[in-house]
Amino acid sequence: MNDTRPIGVFDSGIGGLTVVKALRDLLPNESIFYLGDTARVPYGNKSAETVERYAIELANILAKENAKIIVVACNTVSSVAIPTLRKNFPMPVIGVIEPGARAALEATRNGHIGVIGTRATIRSGAYEKALRASNDQVRVSSLASPLLVPLIEEGLFSDNLTDQILFRYLEPLLTKEIDTLVLGCTHYPLLAGAISRVLKRQIFIVDSAHNCARSVEEVLDRQSLRAALLNNGKLRVALTDAPDSFLNVARDTLKLELGQIELRALV
Amino acid sequence: MNDTRPIGVFDSGIGGLTVVKALRDLLPNESIFYLGDTARVPYGNKSAETVERYAIELANILAKENAKIIVVACNTVSSVAIPTLRKNFPMPVIGVIEPGARAALEATRNGHIGVIGTRATIRSGAYEKALRASNDQVRVSSLASPLLVPLIEEGLFSDNLTDQILFRYLEPLLTKEIDTLVLGCTHYPLLAGAISRVLKRQIFIVDSAHNCARSVEEVLDRQSLRAALLNNGKLRVALTDAPDSFLNVARDTLKLELGQIELRALV
Repeated sequence: MNDTRPIGVFDSGIGGLTVVKALRDLLPNESIFYLGDTARVPYGNKSAETVERYAIELANILAKENAKIIVVACNTVSSVAIPTLRKNFPMPVIGVIEPGARAALEATRNGHIGVIGTRATIRSGAYEKALRASNDQVRVSSLASPLLVPLIEEGLFSDNLTDQILFRYLEPLLTKEIDTLVLGCTHYPLLAGAISRVLKRQIFIVDSAHNCARSVEEVLDRQSLRAALLNNGKLRVALTDAPDSFLNVARDTLKLELGQIELRALV
Repeated sequence: MNDTRPIGVFDSGIGGLTVVKALRDLLPNESIFYLGDTARVPYGNKSAETVERYAIELANILAKENAKIIVVACNTVSSVAIPTLRKNFPMPVIGVIEPGARAALEATRNGHIGVIGTRATIRSGAYEKALRASNDQVRVSSLASPLLVPLIEEGLFSDNLTDQILFRYLEPLLTKEIDTLVLGCTHYPLLAGAISRVLKRQIFIVDSAHNCARSVEEVLDRQSLRAALLNNGKLRVALTDAPDSFLNVARDTLKLELGQIELRALV
């Protein structure tokens, strides 16, 4: 088989490039069209209705780009808009929550899982639902950590302030003795180093980007949507507003070749 | 005279309520219609073109509400969109930059003024331009401080982390020996207490909300647009997305009676 249509990936902004990085590493032969809604970023404090409406607009643009699968590289959107997207679009739709929840259940030994994310993601309870759907005995401790995205967008990866803020968020989860922590926001893998520094003791970290990429591979295989192994996958990146400094932070940290950034107006 | 049409105020979100508070204190007989674009907040990292487009959409809603004057209660919008708004709308348009610059020039004794604000506001150089237009000898030291809005939206007004972050931003300005500091973001007056704590020595703080309200009063007087002194001014608040916890933070901190919040969809 050789389906060279792109994998369509969208996010509220730049954070979803962590998913693109994981996809590039796992599936270098697949082309990717990435769309970041930088004109309206962030979604994390917005209502479910507004996030659903934005998600449909973005998925429409991916459909016009002939995407063979839609990847929602954003926990906030994944937590509220997956059913609507699946109802409105014919291609497979993969979010980051189900893959992350599955990986967390595989990792935990004491059955107590921590989740951090934006207000909207945590308020939705999407991780609890996904975790408990597979195992109703699991304990879940969730915490909104809204200061992390701004710190990441400032590029403060190795900074005492970041460590202090992380410690303040994580300490209550550690006191409750979680053994697994889900990074429930696609920005957070950029902070993985700082998170390990602050956690010190052995906690299994579940990175939604990596697990989402594995799920995409499974679905492409199952539905015979793979590009040929020797295909040379291309990456195109489009944003709804001009890129700012965070794009450079993300590109450099992830070591991604982004090429020319396209601009897409929302009507 | 008794022009009971409302003062129309808009902002990217909730921060502009500091301007509403200043207007209510100064002009209690005037009605106010406030519109916060919480569906697309924040504007501070967005491009000038996108911010201009959003500003026109919001001003159109205020025009339909029969606003007698448009107040741009947002430094980011004021820094890039005032000329466009003045070209497109017949009523007076007042921003926060010119009033703040004027107050800073009145306050400074050593002629060295500091400005803090969002990336978009600082990048625009709008305060430098407004300050130098009146006095080409003035020295201006500007600094983008993008972590302050998230801290404020978290309600961390009396917190050691906030003081540390403020100190990191303000210390270089203090070293340069500014004697006046312009709070170039309508969120920042909510941090006035923490800012005074961190500054310690005598720095004159220019709060754009208060100075904007004074300018509105002047324009209403000059153009005979005042409501009668015995008029009972009403406040209506509309948002483009459902309110989140920050609305409560702002209402409680500012001691504002907001009443029922209206929702306005953007098309």
